[in-house]
Amino acid sequence: MAENRTPRRDSVKDLRSWLFNPRSLAVIGATAHAGKVGNVVLMNILEAGFPGKVFPVNPGTSEIAGVACHPDIGSVPGNVDLAVIIVPARSVPEVVAECAEKGVRGSIVISAGFREAGVEGRRLENDLVSIGRRRGMRILGPNCLGVMNTSLPLNATFSRMMSPKGSIGVISQSGAVCTSLLDWAGEKSIGFSKMISLGNSADLAESDFISALADDAETKVITAYLEGVSNGKKFMRELGKATRKKPVIIFKAGTTQAGARAASSHTGALAGSDSAYNAVCRQAEALRATTMEEFVELASALATQEVPKGPRVAILTNAGGPGIIAADACEREGLFLAAFETKTESGLRKHLPDESNIYNPVDVLGDADAGRYASAASLLLGDRNVDSLLVILTPQAMTEIERTAETLIENCSGKRKTVFCSFMGSKSVESAVSILHKAGIPNIKYPDEAVHILARSYQRTVQKKTPRGKRVRFEVDRAKVKTMFGRYKAECLNQVGPEECRVVMGAYGIDYVPFKIAVDMEEAVQIAGSIGYPVAMKIVSPQILHKTDFGGIKLGVKNPAELEDGFEEIISNCKRRMPGAQITGVGIQKMAEEGKELIAGMVRDPQFGPMVMVGFGGIYVEAFGDVSFRIAPLSDLDAEEMLKELNAFTLLAGSRGEEPSDIRAVEETILRVSQLSLENPDLSEMDINPLVVYTAGNGCTCLDVRMTLGGR
Amino acid sequence: MAENRTPRRDSVKDLRSWLFNPRSLAVIGATAHAGKVGNVVLMNILEAGFPGKVFPVNPGTSEIAGVACHPDIGSVPGNVDLAVIIVPARSVPEVVAECAEKGVRGSIVISAGFREAGVEGRRLENDLVSIGRRRGMRILGPNCLGVMNTSLPLNATFSRMMSPKGSIGVISQSGAVCTSLLDWAGEKSIGFSKMISLGNSADLAESDFISALADDAETKVITAYLEGVSNGKKFMRELGKATRKKPVIIFKAGTTQAGARAASSHTGALAGSDSAYNAVCRQAEALRATTMEEFVELASALATQEVPKGPRVAILTNAGGPGIIAADACEREGLFLAAFETKTESGLRKHLPDESNIYNPVDVLGDADAGRYASAASLLLGDRNVDSLLVILTPQAMTEIERTAETLIENCSGKRKTVFCSFMGSKSVESAVSILHKAGIPNIKYPDEAVHILARSYQRTVQKKTPRGKRVRFEVDRAKVKTMFGRYKAECLNQVGPEECRVVMGAYGIDYVPFKIAVDMEEAVQIAGSIGYPVAMKIVSPQILHKTDFGGIKLGVKNPAELEDGFEEIISNCKRRMPGAQITGVGIQKMAEEGKELIAGMVRDPQFGPMVMVGFGGIYVEAFGDVSFRIAPLSDLDAEEMLKELNAFTLLAGSRGEEPSDIRAVEETILRVSQLSLENPDLSEMDINPLVVYTAGNGCTCLDVRMTLGGR
Repeated sequence: MAENRTPRRDSVKDLRSWLFNPRSLAVIGATAHAGKVGNVVLMNILEAGFPGKVFPVNPGTSEIAGVACHPDIGSVPGNVDLAVIIVPARSVPEVVAECAEKGVRGSIVISAGFREAGVEGRRLENDLVSIGRRRGMRILGPNCLGVMNTSLPLNATFSRMMSPKGSIGVISQSGAVCTSLLDWAGEKSIGFSKMISLGNSADLAESDFISALADDAETKVITAYLEGVSNGKKFMRELGKATRKKPVIIFKAGTTQAGARAASSHTGALAGSDSAYNAVCRQAEALRATTMEEFVELASALATQEVPKGPRVAILTNAGGPGIIAADACEREGLFLAAFETKTESGLRKHLPDESNIYNPVDVLGDADAGRYASAASLLLGDRNVDSLLVILTPQAMTEIERTAETLIENCSGKRKTVFCSFMGSKSVESAVSILHKAGIPNIKYPDEAVHILARSYQRTVQKKTPRGKRVRFEVDRAKVKTMFGRYKAECLNQVGPEECRVVMGAYGIDYVPFKIAVDMEEAVQIAGSIGYPVAMKIVSPQILHKTDFGGIKLGVKNPAELEDGFEEIISNCKRRMPGAQITGVGIQKMAEEGKELIAGMVRDPQFGPMVMVGFGGIYVEAFGDVSFRIAPLSDLDAEEMLKELNAFTLLAGSRGEEPSDIRAVEETILRVSQLSLENPDLSEMDINPLVVYTAGNGCTCLDVRMTLGGR
Repeated sequence: MAENRTPRRDSVKDLRSWLFNPRSLAVIGATAHAGKVGNVVLMNILEAGFPGKVFPVNPGTSEIAGVACHPDIGSVPGNVDLAVIIVPARSVPEVVAECAEKGVRGSIVISAGFREAGVEGRRLENDLVSIGRRRGMRILGPNCLGVMNTSLPLNATFSRMMSPKGSIGVISQSGAVCTSLLDWAGEKSIGFSKMISLGNSADLAESDFISALADDAETKVITAYLEGVSNGKKFMRELGKATRKKPVIIFKAGTTQAGARAASSHTGALAGSDSAYNAVCRQAEALRATTMEEFVELASALATQEVPKGPRVAILTNAGGPGIIAADACEREGLFLAAFETKTESGLRKHLPDESNIYNPVDVLGDADAGRYASAASLLLGDRNVDSLLVILTPQAMTEIERTAETLIENCSGKRKTVFCSFMGSKSVESAVSILHKAGIPNIKYPDEAVHILARSYQRTVQKKTPRGKRVRFEVDRAKVKTMFGRYKAECLNQVGPEECRVVMGAYGIDYVPFKIAVDMEEAVQIAGSIGYPVAMKIVSPQILHKTDFGGIKLGVKNPAELEDGFEEIISNCKRRMPGAQITGVGIQKMAEEGKELIAGMVRDPQFGPMVMVGFGGIYVEAFGDVSFRIAPLSDLDAEEMLKELNAFTLLAGSRGEEPSDIRAVEETILRVSQLSLENPDLSEMDINPLVVYTAGNGCTCLDVRMTLGGR
């Protein structure tokens, strides 16, 4: 949406000049009144040492903090790149118009009282956006904390603190999260390159900044706290581009609303914004943080250390217990304890006391001094089988805490391996931790948490190694489906009938077991006779979506007598259990051969568009939720990964003497569903349940399909 | 094991006198040499202010730190309650013997060089234990940090720090974990009542101290860091007794070894020490911490706050984002956002600015001062629909951080509700956090982590409310099974044959579909004819355990022709796929009616004895692992809970138009398996797979059972 608003297509690239590196800026609504936001912002800009020109604007005063004040933006001499606006909400649209008139390149609206404050505020925000769009001026905010660029330096915020210089770029929909991050940063000796508080994202939004920070040389890792996105497609595209250049960590708050979506399909019931964001992060190769702690620790780790090149961890400890805790965590997190080279083992045997454990986790014993830690660390870092080193220290009687930190730093330099520490304590280890942090070695309080963050960092390596797949397009009869859906739309019908579903599947090359509707018993007997017994019988009624729930299904019907009984039973079940249902007839279908029952489907996410699902079906589908989602369009590798992600994938790959299933056929089906959902925006939900897959080479087939129209 | 060692059955109760509150103690191996353990221990005892008599023992000196030194324990005048021993390992047994001679009541052996140091050390440790046992002297250690009792005070350890006084009792198999806990305690203003480092647990072990701390009035919450237990049954019994009095938190390290167990059954493959400890903690109603952070934070919370009386949380915040993060966490953790009383809503409306959110999470806005927080907190704490309150504070420009902490404390007093804080920051909030901690309000850095700890605390309430079940005993033919297993044992056979399995099931009243073995095709036809078609056919061979894997099963065989084909096919499959297998014949079984397929079973844990399992069966059993374990004997409520714990329980309870399954029958089967495994210690593993359950009132039946003998 944001991308359609602006008359200047290049203006997002310009962000890096007018917003991050303005040569001159005006603070409109600046005041001498200490404690007021208009004062805090001006003082922050001045005190941080902004190197360009600063123009306070306020009609009521001639000078603030020794800087000449101007009555309005028009009176400011020369060019102004950036306007920082802190006037009451109702005056903001007019002020923005004046800025545009003056030729100001862009603005930050810090003032609150817009969309977040009710109907009147929403109107003001709309005015603001349309003025900006008409006049070609981009706006950050309103209702935001502002922007920091530590390299200029620029602190155009009303934060209590300026960020220390560093390499983490922060994009946040919550100003409060920014202030807490600033506070935590001090503790961890980390710093930020840019910090952008998005506020209401009325114009400039998260995607614009992901893109800007991707190109920012001072930013090594991008972090984004999001409660939603303005434009799902654009977000996914920019995110995917950014992660080719640097790691991006996403924390998504507000996952509880997910349940709110009314769902008429299994796919819909299993989806939710959480699945959507998971899929987006996977496909765009971003790292999704699921807790605040992970968000902070992972950002610190990625900003300071190289990502581990492989999953092999060496643990070095002066106490057995914490070593075991870390080893447990490695197993849980999918990392491995490195098996050392022989020369490392003999080196350790030579340098460590006899009672030490020279195998992984290496235990240098409770009385280890800094030298013993140093010689072990040096050997472990020199081992070709070690990708990363976790150094655990417990403060015991003989422990040389600071000295161990110092010698460790000397040993790590130039080794190009990932090193994390877990100096376990508080006061005793405080100064050593600060030494480590200053040298860019993360110290994580608990060894199991350290391993967890190491594993998340390693995920970045895995993502970088994984090739991005190719989009596949199949020859399909798109026109036929378009015409059919058009007819439904014209008649305001939402549920696609079973025979029409079969036509759609045919047009998109998805195998579907032949199916005919019998309106009465005679016709049923005739159809079954022509397709051959055994058959399946299924109620056909636009009101009955979950046929099983209403006793609307009979399987393995073997002869005309059973068929007749079944027909009566199905009709009477459905009439009794849903008296209002219109019954179109009973579908008669050839019984398919037995195979593994999967479910596939699609549901349209309001932000990200079609989400394609595959998983294990049958009665367990909702109980186990062993399903996987991706946002369409899917690549060939997405389809492959989706299946591998399932807990029960081994059942498809072939296990316990069974032949493998036709995985390729399932992948193709998922890709065809992806294409179908992209080419037919009216299709809002579909379930293929079951999708029966046979042994390799024998394909897969749909036994039942449901489609609902009404998409955007 | 430990319980069999001691000649004085009451000596564990005595721990509280001679170990925690000795009137006099000797430090054997004390030295004036600063930095040596023998000096550190003595100085720690003196400096902590031990109120009793202290006797340093060392033949080489007459005085240490102004205290008269004795050449040996025999020369010490008067009674000595406790000996703290820090002499070289090889002298320890002799010293212990001298202590016993002197009438010393018990000893702490701090010296290392025992079991942990190899063969010679193990021999020394055995000597030590047998001397102690023979002479009636209990021993803590060897190879331990020692003991602290903050109320006496006693610091008989070589730790750098003495614990602050408090209400957390610590039992640890790792001395290093103790020292780290001491360090962290300072940060959180928490303290410990007793701290016991177990060392090698050669004599006194974890269970003894769980029992001692359960009776200790100064201990409000017991925490135990364990790498294993000395005696599983005793541990479970003492744990169960302790949790009736106070919460016990268990952190179990060393879960990775779990995979090492070779398993011939599904049950065995799914079990592991992790499942065993989970079952133990559930049945004994202890809280199992899965991360170090949880261990520390949960202990602090339980030591300082009342547990929440219910699951309804009020969130109070000065920033929207963190409020959303906390609300997300509530949903994830199974807590609820409280719906406020009308009077609370109107009170909030009156006291808060118009733009505030007066619904949960209550947002007092970024400019909230202490007063605004106070009035909101007071209203929320007075609301009958609120069980606990989480106060989130982000340090913004106008925030009165310390003042907010202070007014909050005033408001909480006397309200008897659970209050947690999450003041999000570091330096800015440091002094406020210290104010909160001193007042016994836990501050947890991240709001989602705070909610997680709140949820774990609430688990204690749930456990306390849940009645403990009753053990059920069924009338069974125990003698018949005993005789049969005895015969197997005599013949050194481990795999119980299928017909004998049926006899066992019959003797224990577990329904099993009739089954007969045909040695040739004629017999097969004859058996099938007599039991009636359709039938199932299953290979019978002592070598073939997983019949499906070898093509050894045919289901739904409808007539003699199919039976004959099936017979040949099964035999040839098995001969081809496992040429060495002896084939006893083919079992012919009446095809059971269709129902839900479960799996039940038992595996004997080396520590805790029979572990009974139930779960969803069929091909998904290992892929989803939707199973639940309990240690036998099971109570009626254990059996009920096991089923409710399954992810797919809704499928049994009846959903989507289906009738509920016969849950009671499954529970009874599990209870009968529990009794079978307790009464027959030779039975080491069994699988009932599938256990088919029918609709309520129609019972359940076993279709296939495997039993392996060789238990302890």
